[in-house]
Amino acid sequence: MNNAAPVKVNPDLLRERQKCTFNNLELTHLLDGGADKTAERREREEFFLNDPEFKSKTPVEYLSHKEKYEESVRRACLVLKKVQQLQDQGKGGIDNYRQVIGAQLGSALLQDGNPIALHYIMFIPTLMGQGTIDQQAEWIQRAWNLEIIGTYAQTELGHGTFIRGLETTATYDAKTQEFVLHSPTLTSYKWWPGGLGHSSNYAVVMAQLYTQEKCRGMHAFIVQLRDEETNMPLPGIKIGEIGCKLGMNATNNGFLGFEKVRIPRNHLLMKNSKVLEDGTYVKAPSSKLAYGTMIFVRVVIVEDAAFFLRKAVTIATRYSAVRHQCQLKAGEPETQIMDYITQQYKLFPNIATFFAYSYVAKWLWEYYNNVTGELEAGILDRLPELHAIACCLKAVASADAAAGVETCRLACGGHGYMTSSSLPTTYGLVTAMCTYEGENTVLLLQTARFLMKSCQSVMEGKSMTPTIKYLETYQTANIKPFEKNIEWIISALKKMAASKIQTTFNHMSSRAEKGMAPEDAWNETSIELVGAAESHCRVNVVEIYYNMMLQIKNTVSEELRVVLFQLVNLYAVHIALRYTGDLLRYTNTLGKDIEELQSWLEELLAAIRPNAVGIVDSFDIRDEILMSTLGSYDGNVYERLFEEASKSPLNAEPVNKSFRQYLQPLLKSNM
Amino acid sequence: MNNAAPVKVNPDLLRERQKCTFNNLELTHLLDGGADKTAERREREEFFLNDPEFKSKTPVEYLSHKEKYEESVRRACLVLKKVQQLQDQGKGGIDNYRQVIGAQLGSALLQDGNPIALHYIMFIPTLMGQGTIDQQAEWIQRAWNLEIIGTYAQTELGHGTFIRGLETTATYDAKTQEFVLHSPTLTSYKWWPGGLGHSSNYAVVMAQLYTQEKCRGMHAFIVQLRDEETNMPLPGIKIGEIGCKLGMNATNNGFLGFEKVRIPRNHLLMKNSKVLEDGTYVKAPSSKLAYGTMIFVRVVIVEDAAFFLRKAVTIATRYSAVRHQCQLKAGEPETQIMDYITQQYKLFPNIATFFAYSYVAKWLWEYYNNVTGELEAGILDRLPELHAIACCLKAVASADAAAGVETCRLACGGHGYMTSSSLPTTYGLVTAMCTYEGENTVLLLQTARFLMKSCQSVMEGKSMTPTIKYLETYQTANIKPFEKNIEWIISALKKMAASKIQTTFNHMSSRAEKGMAPEDAWNETSIELVGAAESHCRVNVVEIYYNMMLQIKNTVSEELRVVLFQLVNLYAVHIALRYTGDLLRYTNTLGKDIEELQSWLEELLAAIRPNAVGIVDSFDIRDEILMSTLGSYDGNVYERLFEEASKSPLNAEPVNKSFRQYLQPLLKSNM
Repeated sequence: MNNAAPVKVNPDLLRERQKCTFNNLELTHLLDGGADKTAERREREEFFLNDPEFKSKTPVEYLSHKEKYEESVRRACLVLKKVQQLQDQGKGGIDNYRQVIGAQLGSALLQDGNPIALHYIMFIPTLMGQGTIDQQAEWIQRAWNLEIIGTYAQTELGHGTFIRGLETTATYDAKTQEFVLHSPTLTSYKWWPGGLGHSSNYAVVMAQLYTQEKCRGMHAFIVQLRDEETNMPLPGIKIGEIGCKLGMNATNNGFLGFEKVRIPRNHLLMKNSKVLEDGTYVKAPSSKLAYGTMIFVRVVIVEDAAFFLRKAVTIATRYSAVRHQCQLKAGEPETQIMDYITQQYKLFPNIATFFAYSYVAKWLWEYYNNVTGELEAGILDRLPELHAIACCLKAVASADAAAGVETCRLACGGHGYMTSSSLPTTYGLVTAMCTYEGENTVLLLQTARFLMKSCQSVMEGKSMTPTIKYLETYQTANIKPFEKNIEWIISALKKMAASKIQTTFNHMSSRAEKGMAPEDAWNETSIELVGAAESHCRVNVVEIYYNMMLQIKNTVSEELRVVLFQLVNLYAVHIALRYTGDLLRYTNTLGKDIEELQSWLEELLAAIRPNAVGIVDSFDIRDEILMSTLGSYDGNVYERLFEEASKSPLNAEPVNKSFRQYLQPLLKSNM
Repeated sequence: MNNAAPVKVNPDLLRERQKCTFNNLELTHLLDGGADKTAERREREEFFLNDPEFKSKTPVEYLSHKEKYEESVRRACLVLKKVQQLQDQGKGGIDNYRQVIGAQLGSALLQDGNPIALHYIMFIPTLMGQGTIDQQAEWIQRAWNLEIIGTYAQTELGHGTFIRGLETTATYDAKTQEFVLHSPTLTSYKWWPGGLGHSSNYAVVMAQLYTQEKCRGMHAFIVQLRDEETNMPLPGIKIGEIGCKLGMNATNNGFLGFEKVRIPRNHLLMKNSKVLEDGTYVKAPSSKLAYGTMIFVRVVIVEDAAFFLRKAVTIATRYSAVRHQCQLKAGEPETQIMDYITQQYKLFPNIATFFAYSYVAKWLWEYYNNVTGELEAGILDRLPELHAIACCLKAVASADAAAGVETCRLACGGHGYMTSSSLPTTYGLVTAMCTYEGENTVLLLQTARFLMKSCQSVMEGKSMTPTIKYLETYQTANIKPFEKNIEWIISALKKMAASKIQTTFNHMSSRAEKGMAPEDAWNETSIELVGAAESHCRVNVVEIYYNMMLQIKNTVSEELRVVLFQLVNLYAVHIALRYTGDLLRYTNTLGKDIEELQSWLEELLAAIRPNAVGIVDSFDIRDEILMSTLGSYDGNVYERLFEEASKSPLNAEPVNKSFRQYLQPLLKSNM
């Protein structure tokens, strides 16, 4: 006999699941990349999430800031022990690390960030990318065996975006063959690195290298921060955490200042440039090689942004099936809120947006691997295009995902505001992506720079690379009259983007012609430059997503194919309607075409409605990963809200001590 | 001799202030409503904020959830004691209560919500609005003297928007002349009321009244929840707090269930409807009278939304003057980020949006007072229009303010993510407004219902009330060719809104003509209905704001007038550009007109740039209200960030205990 009472599934969800027209598991396998990948993921999730050590009696949100940190260190250490067990069993390989840090499993194991994540995301990769063979042999082994824990200290209190402006200095002293690290100002203090506060004892520190009295620019140094035995900060090291944030309060972001701290010469990472014993500086052969890691992180962000959005739409879609409110018709039972078209309009385009970025991330990943392969062979041709598309994809994906998560949260009404819905925490994590690893507006302007160069090249008759090929044709040709298909939308978006790029180019040129300095002309035109970069990004997302659907079209069942194409159509229509103004302005799209698009949007919402729960079920996100009272598989929303509230330490006592201390004296004071 | 060292003001801010072309104090007085109002406000702020009891050594964000609550009770009691002192001195009057609860002073005294606020915002007003003279005499005095603390319990776990669906029952027992309050289901538990958790001992409870075996709908009852001496919950009262939220974690939102709790007959608030001793039900003369409080709260939200936005733009604008990043031109010093046009585009339209909602709130307040005056004289004519405009204004103002606060936060980069910037907390408070007191989409659909009726009336040749007057003219007439002035923009927006309303009406009608039930036709058209209501709202905001500027035009100095009209122009242009698609689609606006608008936008940003700091200085928000490391008057951003971080309890010890507990064993494990 089974002791556990069978879980009652909410009848609305049961009914939704019965309506589903396709096989959930087929979609799960497709998204995972195959049945074997699904099995591997599920096994990994089971291994971690079934461990009672990961279940807390008091949810972390009730703890103090300090307690949150201590709990996160406990969990982070536990995660690493368990990863080691998997590695010892030969299961999962390097992917285990990516998964326990990433947006799906990682954000379930450590809900508000991991204080040791940068050890794997930045410290080890930088040693690998910038250390000599000898340095790698020494440091990577120590890091990999967790004899030391490292972080990556670049951003300063006064400098984030502008790396050349960083102020920390590393001055070579040939007499002792040491570098002297120093923080000359308050603004030169390192500020933000994750795990820097109290969790790491080493860091890769970025500093301005001075040798033979010349500044040689930014270089990476290995610096010991704390005693390996006692964890006490070493002499001259001013270190601590930076305080509370909107989210990620367990990442232990820290500050770091140096008071003339001496490190040996061989702590400069010297794979590219070197300082010889006498202080002679030997320059790196190419400065572009360092691009690799930066682009890599942006690729990861596109994928993680999609993951966070997937979590939010799963929660909001299930809740919208369970929640009833108001009556569509008087006398009828209250309506499932998912039957309100305005609600569908909040949810379904975000489901489609998840698919879009998920597939674009796969594409970008492949493109990135190809280009880095070429880089190692010394071919740099495709680097500018990769850089440009990775910049705008990071910006647009993170912004869309953040907006989508908020839309989902607001679509859950008051209950979405509860921490137990998991939506506020998810927003805290996803919105951070808009700022870190390249602020979004700055990145879009980087893409715009590529677009302006491309525009110039097209006018000079040069041939363009794939993501910008459309500039060649669509600057002159007009588009066909409206047709209700995605190819028409893509051609309209291309015409629109090409025209925006050209218009922006013209505005910038005419400012320059009037005698404005090129830099000022750039700045004065920058609102339009950002707009052009966004449009360029949208064109590529729609086209890449659609092409990938065409690629898999014949590998899936008819039932699933129908759904996949409803989603890609919805995405394209949704984007086109967002750009109504630009389509009308820059293409021969007519008002009545917009009306057709609006009807098509409404048709697609209706078509997706019966499968909405089925689609999010196929994302196969375990309850322990969703961690949401509103989104659990069984749909017992109200029971869970109640159960979570009962865990509040305030509810452990019927009367809080503040009554005797403050309220009662006030009540007795006869005011 | 003065012992305090003079505070060094950041030289960038000094320079900005020297550039300012108008008198700050004139604008301060204008916004406050006169020099006397400014003096009164400043005196009140000084009285509260200078009290050392309001200064905490450890910022609240570091505390546990329970400690946050306890600290908020301490502060709330202190606030009330000090209000009483002011009242005793005859200073400030009833406005003191509004201010200590509101978005400016209130959110400084209790950063994350006030657990006693609903006593004043809902409990006392409901007693006043719905109690008989006798009931008022008994209860209002007790409440006003703080012998009891009350809240207002309406929303249930399963019901928010749909008030008729509330499940709590109050069944009259004629034998004992009592009502029996009962929660028949889990979903009928009250959920959300502020202060309900542990802070109130009374509540007005909304419940379905049953008498003589018939349901008589929702009525308000006075219910004692806790013993006045011990604060213990009374028998049959299931009560507690609902747990952590995205924000407002000090408001002590609670749940409440009844197990057949008996209350005397005269605890039904009987100003409108009555239950006689034998159980006979006497109906209220008009059901519309209850609208008053609901509309009142929405008026307050428009004003508070503007206040929150004002705080955020003050912080982001000052920070943008202090922060330098990158170089516009190689070799030059790093640029103040406010000199980037993309940054101006994030900040200045939000400054203008504050002015817009601030003036619209004044207008709405006056309109509300007029209509409620008429109501008391039995005139209900203008109630539908007031209701319609208050609904959409609440929705659009809260949504714009929330989006604006987030834009400001993101415009501050990484540092905006720090709690010490005050931007995350401000967002938590302002985004809540999108959901409470009428969920925004629901409210826009209420406005849309008024618009569809108006559309029908116009077609029948009826005359329209002021806010919708434009429907009469602009459904047929076209607009003049583009002119670079605000009147042209208003006429274009009117034409656009009228056309959208008409198009939406037509789409709904044609669905009904095809045989769809009217309710389904409504639902199917609801995306466009929401769009129509938003456009209607925008037209009114631009026009009302502009008209109020015309009204005060000749009462201000030339220097200030110039700035005020730059701002109203910027607001209008910004809105017009947001509606590019609709303008092109529904009016004879041309692509080149949009290009003119874009240039005008850029001109206005440049014009406002030198005064940006001066404008936000004029908001005259004390540092203790801003509570922002990034936004303080002296601009010592980096010093303050550092100082705030030093307050983190984690930084009190160089080594956290988690090192010995978890990290060291891991480091020693030779993984």
